[in-house]
Amino acid sequence: MNHLYRICFFIALVLPVVAVSAADAPVLREVEQWDVYEIELEGPSGGNPFLDVRLSASFSDGFRRFEVDGFYDGDGVYRIRFMPDRPGRWTYFTQSNRRQLTNRQGAFEATPAAKGNRGPVQVHRTFHFAYADGTPYYPFGTTAYNWLHRKDRLRAETLETLAEAPFNKVRMLLYPEDEKARPMPPEFPFEGDDPRNQEWDFERLNPAFFRRVEEGILALRDLGIEADVILFHKYGEDWGFEAMDPEVDDRYLRYVIARLAAYRNVWWSVANEWDFVRTKTMDDWDRYFKILSDHDPYGRLRSIHNGFRMYDNRKDWVTHASIQNGAAVEEPGRAQMYRDVWEKPVVYDEVKYEGDLVQRWGNLSAEEMVHRFWAGTVAGTYVGHGECYQHPSREIWLTTGGVLRGGSPERIGFLRSILEDAPGPVDPVDKWQDPTMGGIHGEYYLVYFGREAPEKWRFQLFRRGLAEGQEYAVEIIDTWNMTITPVDTTFVVTRKDGYHFIDRGGRAVELPGKPYHALRIRRVGGESVFAVEELPLL
Amino acid sequence: MNHLYRICFFIALVLPVVAVSAADAPVLREVEQWDVYEIELEGPSGGNPFLDVRLSASFSDGFRRFEVDGFYDGDGVYRIRFMPDRPGRWTYFTQSNRRQLTNRQGAFEATPAAKGNRGPVQVHRTFHFAYADGTPYYPFGTTAYNWLHRKDRLRAETLETLAEAPFNKVRMLLYPEDEKARPMPPEFPFEGDDPRNQEWDFERLNPAFFRRVEEGILALRDLGIEADVILFHKYGEDWGFEAMDPEVDDRYLRYVIARLAAYRNVWWSVANEWDFVRTKTMDDWDRYFKILSDHDPYGRLRSIHNGFRMYDNRKDWVTHASIQNGAAVEEPGRAQMYRDVWEKPVVYDEVKYEGDLVQRWGNLSAEEMVHRFWAGTVAGTYVGHGECYQHPSREIWLTTGGVLRGGSPERIGFLRSILEDAPGPVDPVDKWQDPTMGGIHGEYYLVYFGREAPEKWRFQLFRRGLAEGQEYAVEIIDTWNMTITPVDTTFVVTRKDGYHFIDRGGRAVELPGKPYHALRIRRVGGESVFAVEELPLL
Repeated sequence: MNHLYRICFFIALVLPVVAVSAADAPVLREVEQWDVYEIELEGPSGGNPFLDVRLSASFSDGFRRFEVDGFYDGDGVYRIRFMPDRPGRWTYFTQSNRRQLTNRQGAFEATPAAKGNRGPVQVHRTFHFAYADGTPYYPFGTTAYNWLHRKDRLRAETLETLAEAPFNKVRMLLYPEDEKARPMPPEFPFEGDDPRNQEWDFERLNPAFFRRVEEGILALRDLGIEADVILFHKYGEDWGFEAMDPEVDDRYLRYVIARLAAYRNVWWSVANEWDFVRTKTMDDWDRYFKILSDHDPYGRLRSIHNGFRMYDNRKDWVTHASIQNGAAVEEPGRAQMYRDVWEKPVVYDEVKYEGDLVQRWGNLSAEEMVHRFWAGTVAGTYVGHGECYQHPSREIWLTTGGVLRGGSPERIGFLRSILEDAPGPVDPVDKWQDPTMGGIHGEYYLVYFGREAPEKWRFQLFRRGLAEGQEYAVEIIDTWNMTITPVDTTFVVTRKDGYHFIDRGGRAVELPGKPYHALRIRRVGGESVFAVEELPLL
Repeated sequence: MNHLYRICFFIALVLPVVAVSAADAPVLREVEQWDVYEIELEGPSGGNPFLDVRLSASFSDGFRRFEVDGFYDGDGVYRIRFMPDRPGRWTYFTQSNRRQLTNRQGAFEATPAAKGNRGPVQVHRTFHFAYADGTPYYPFGTTAYNWLHRKDRLRAETLETLAEAPFNKVRMLLYPEDEKARPMPPEFPFEGDDPRNQEWDFERLNPAFFRRVEEGILALRDLGIEADVILFHKYGEDWGFEAMDPEVDDRYLRYVIARLAAYRNVWWSVANEWDFVRTKTMDDWDRYFKILSDHDPYGRLRSIHNGFRMYDNRKDWVTHASIQNGAAVEEPGRAQMYRDVWEKPVVYDEVKYEGDLVQRWGNLSAEEMVHRFWAGTVAGTYVGHGECYQHPSREIWLTTGGVLRGGSPERIGFLRSILEDAPGPVDPVDKWQDPTMGGIHGEYYLVYFGREAPEKWRFQLFRRGLAEGQEYAVEIIDTWNMTITPVDTTFVVTRKDGYHFIDRGGRAVELPGKPYHALRIRRVGGESVFAVEELPLL
């Protein structure tokens, strides 16, 4: 706890008492750190507030300043939402081109985050993620594209499913998909008389639509789930949202940022299958990223999801790669390669889906889905889930949400629990040499054998972080049956050659000779070695 | 032959006759298209010409203009070298800050390229290369880092070896490696009294060193071999060339460009294992690229070769990726991934070497080396060779040149002949789905089974470019024994499903059940289909 934090904490505890006892000191409204403080203002409702009225506020904790856009919420109501990232006293004043809305001042108190509120997820150690409080965040995402835009019963069912499922991120479309022959979405992002004929008033956003979106995002937040919000896609072709003019696109984006950015579980996914959206150019995609960078005061995570062609994820405004490529986690040795070229976290959000469709992107077995999670994990990358089993209800998790029917989620949860037990994120241990092993040099290793069914594994670790006499405990993991079986001995290492250490007795680990098995190896004795070498070993 | 070309060709044939018959018309010097026209001028030798004298020339064919730097060649001699890229009459004038050297004017005649002169190699169709005359160039490179800097006997032997070898590119260091306990290089790039003590005059380059380099490059050119010239590396630490000041680096680069850029077989490799050179920053590497882009009038191919970390090969000034990563071509499905992210040709210049060293980068079997060439080829990428067998002579091909002792070159030559027989460059046929197959949709396929030893292969092709009733001939290739065995039947295709066509009779190709086999499949009947689809098939 640093000094500033201590002071703030003190204020937060003491202030309500002071406020009550000193009648002429105003009582400060309180909001939890990383929650949302909302300013509500009455303003003009005539003309077109979406076009005519500019509104923002400047928030400061006395050290830093955040410029935050407000938005029109209909019926003469304007709102400005702000997420305080530190506890303590915050002040603000508004700016507007309307007298009613400008120079409104105020203050509030941010209280320290309560248990379960770890703040927004950020990039951590180049290839990984952590919550703002430092807790590692290992993405175990799923996709339910259109769940936000279904009727309340189905939305509630989706949330019930997620409450029990192992997923801590959901990918979802901000504007609705045109699901052929399915019920109309209850709301649309723009005002309009006849959705089927694309008769929108693109100059008027629809606050009711966004309120419904926000309810969904907040419900996810309360379940500890990140909302990976897809801003553009081509699946709304019946509605016409993928072919709006640039000014409309940009206004839509600014409005979305003003409404949603303050929610700490929001991630921005600029597009799904960006290269399949034939109504945009690369300049458009770059511009959307720039708008997000410029106007989101919190720098929420930003990515763009590919179809067949890769976006240049090295660009500054991309925080992590959001990849569609099932082949990359199908066999060992592939997943890691994108880490090298982008030097950012690699999230394989789409590796084909568990399901029974005739399309080859939608018919993975549960075993194969689980396999891909493990293959990505030992490569120091993250894998996402999706499910598309056909069902008489026409409800398919991937599209509508609802219930999960597949065999992979439970096993994905098992992997998640293993990763969350690890002492830190997993990286490749001996890049370009041994694609089966990830871990932390000299401390912790996961070895995944995939489709191989070895009957033994000679105990051998890459030299980095190792020293004579260190002791290692080994457990055998059945990734499908979710068992962890300790090996009844400790392995003591000795140098084998310029690259490896082996067990002093040259012993091997006996394995059951079945596919989809893994090892967890942990140092249980001997010194820790500072695991840095002058040059990596090729 | 376009109109301009025809005119030039006419002039080239007729002009000598005219010049002889009309005594007062000057006889134009002639030089072959894509060869080097050299201006030699007498100038000042006092002071320090390397620092004091600026010299360049402006060349034009009446349509375009090239600004070309000159250089000081010692003993009061200055030279400007220029490669005319089109036949026809070229004029020039010089510019200098010395009266003797400035405003010298002249003209010459570029004659059409003779047989065997196909011009410089350029990037072709995103992922491939072609000579300037349009002939595809498939890189089959090798590495002999220090061959330029060995005694004449060994250099001659290297050239004799290359004359018989299958390689059409050699990677080589421009400044010498410090080979411990080996003979001193005959010349160094700078003047200096005591090389071992790094007592260089970094303000004076050594023309004798560069003349020796040029002899080597020209000898390669005459063998039809590209010279991939490595400009910086860390293996010269005993000499100190990797730790020069930025001004010296830049002057060295400008001098190298002035001397070498006109040779059509020159490629620029900014560094070997750039990330292992701890005396440079990323800004330095970027600046070297920029100097090459700005001052090489011909835009010779530019790359940078990695150690453990990837340079951002998306940067504009990189023409192709020059990669060290043996793992990428060890198993199928990996090599293609870098194509996706960089959208440039991917050359795996270093995939470990055939040899018997204890180091794991230097002990591939010949079989494994050949395997990696095939694995890279069917992925639409290119692989490079290297060899490091220990020998009593202490001559190792990788370092010194000399003779080849390994088993892979002959088989690499076999692959090269197959590729040069193909109707065009090989690309992945069904990216992310079938990593064993490369080719040209509906026309030509190579299938490589690698370490697999199948006994049959069910005839099946990805749907793009296919139509009912097309006929295909199949040959079985033994990549190691270099045999091509035709299958005694023709396969007639019919649609199987949304993805594939198969043989009408559902037939398979019988295979010998041994590793390292491949198939060559060519359409021999039926219509050609324009092989473009609206969206790629995931």
